[in-house]
Amino acid sequence: MSTTLTVSYSRHGKPQEVAYNEEQTLPAVGEKQVRIEIKLAPINPSDINTLEGTYAQLPELPAVGGREAVGVVVEIGSAVKDLKVGQLVEPPPALGAWRQQVVADADKVLPFPEGLSVEQAAVLSVNPATARLMLTEFVDLKPGDFVIQNAANSGVGRSVIEIAKARGLKTINLVRREELIAELKALGADHVLLDDDTLRHKLKEVTGGAPIKLALNTVGGDSAFRLTFTLAQGGIMVTYGGMSKQPIRLGTGLLIFKDIQLRGFWVTRWYKKASREQVLTLWEELGALARKGAFRLPIEKRYPLTEFKQALEHAQQSSRGGKIVFQPNP
Amino acid sequence: MSTTLTVSYSRHGKPQEVAYNEEQTLPAVGEKQVRIEIKLAPINPSDINTLEGTYAQLPELPAVGGREAVGVVVEIGSAVKDLKVGQLVEPPPALGAWRQQVVADADKVLPFPEGLSVEQAAVLSVNPATARLMLTEFVDLKPGDFVIQNAANSGVGRSVIEIAKARGLKTINLVRREELIAELKALGADHVLLDDDTLRHKLKEVTGGAPIKLALNTVGGDSAFRLTFTLAQGGIMVTYGGMSKQPIRLGTGLLIFKDIQLRGFWVTRWYKKASREQVLTLWEELGALARKGAFRLPIEKRYPLTEFKQALEHAQQSSRGGKIVFQPNP
Repeated sequence: MSTTLTVSYSRHGKPQEVAYNEEQTLPAVGEKQVRIEIKLAPINPSDINTLEGTYAQLPELPAVGGREAVGVVVEIGSAVKDLKVGQLVEPPPALGAWRQQVVADADKVLPFPEGLSVEQAAVLSVNPATARLMLTEFVDLKPGDFVIQNAANSGVGRSVIEIAKARGLKTINLVRREELIAELKALGADHVLLDDDTLRHKLKEVTGGAPIKLALNTVGGDSAFRLTFTLAQGGIMVTYGGMSKQPIRLGTGLLIFKDIQLRGFWVTRWYKKASREQVLTLWEELGALARKGAFRLPIEKRYPLTEFKQALEHAQQSSRGGKIVFQPNP
Repeated sequence: MSTTLTVSYSRHGKPQEVAYNEEQTLPAVGEKQVRIEIKLAPINPSDINTLEGTYAQLPELPAVGGREAVGVVVEIGSAVKDLKVGQLVEPPPALGAWRQQVVADADKVLPFPEGLSVEQAAVLSVNPATARLMLTEFVDLKPGDFVIQNAANSGVGRSVIEIAKARGLKTINLVRREELIAELKALGADHVLLDDDTLRHKLKEVTGGAPIKLALNTVGGDSAFRLTFTLAQGGIMVTYGGMSKQPIRLGTGLLIFKDIQLRGFWVTRWYKKASREQVLTLWEELGALARKGAFRLPIEKRYPLTEFKQALEHAQQSSRGGKIVFQPNP
């Protein structure tokens, strides 16, 4: 009977204080199961909030930390048909991602598209999926239509720029720092503007008065308030984060007379409702863009599971340039 | 050639200062036209804002004031088939309602349901229509489902109570004054609660934990903020007014994790898009309720057109018990 190293927690609190290493027993592989070796497992803000106990959805304790991971299939049960040894897969998020190995039911394991590196696969299922779904599930956008977003330099924001470009949509990207303008334009952004009170004045220059039907908000507060004014009659603002920790506010008249809608998006809810086929179709589309060079979010630092304290502290620092990840099998 | 007395205005400002009486020429009735004598024309808040120039939609000046009216057909053109002399009708709102008579194209004149008094017809097309459409156009409610609303003693709020009761829906009604509780219960309200911070505590008592899928907001500010917390997963808050003049605000997490939606409703937009048949079907349903005694909004005071200064001043006083109306042909 073999064991596997994990980063686990049995109570909520400061992540680096409640997390601990644990050797867990690895069960034998059943005939409809597979054994997966985890290659990369990011430390996402939602993982931090889960350890803190402040996230919207919390697993029963004790639990293994993390949800998102890329693994490689190393052993398959005799009845498993649609997975093979050596394939890159996403293990079931509910089992916890910060671990060396996992044994899982094959029907809950999702294969990544062919031809992706571990690093490309590792960033596909959350940020690019969020970006793509927000661009398609709320408003029927046609090539040439405008989309506006705040925090355009975030992981989702960068994916929005790349996916919108591939679909022929024009992006208006709001950022807080001048030095991001050139960087996002290089990525394919059509327009990059400062997220302040000059926006209203500059907006007409870039749209020529064309309607903006979709706004993507991950900031809240003043930034979201400004976004609501940019929308055309019947436009929708989709909120997927609240970085400013300020509530969203908007004028009553925009709802009544301009027929603006406020909606929210949470990719976890989409995955819960989606069929296996819908997920694989989405990933195929995103994988094709990744193979052409999209979604290159740099990995800032890789940690072994034994250095979880440093890793979790690092992940909570605010001005990160790229992902902080566990590499459980160096 | 006959003339008709109107209350008109040629510039925006304080309503009682910019309004004036004018004798306008009344054209001969064409073969596809009708001549209507106005029986009652309410002074609505939106009419006041239109004279002030602050409303979302303003007619070209000079204009006749008012939009909503009940008239009686007094003459019909030779080619008019579906209207008859003596019938109660709504003249085209765009022609202005504060006048003794109007000549209008028959296809823009809408007949009220049979068997209604002038007073019943006068209050049908705005408040009860707004209430009924908000209850049906956003969420698919089944008998026994809960609806929550603020300013439940407003014209629309009272209509919501009566229509919801007829449809088997349960209403939770928020008011600011204790003394309204008995009055609204007599009207058919299932629950009447004070619109303050005690709400959250009391809500579970009245719902027994059942989900609230629809909230109706005409206040904004703190009251709307409280309403957003009462909604179940996937619930919708529909805003149709902003009495507090405070923006709406809500927590980001409600949009993302609870999938709450914020929408707006403006009955004028509905009428613009609706077919004549859709309008007449809606009015037939509301007329049936009115004949059974619903929508009895008291008329506080009737003014002749010549007393427009007093009428407009009266209509701007905040604590009105009923409608202030013009009765152009006493």
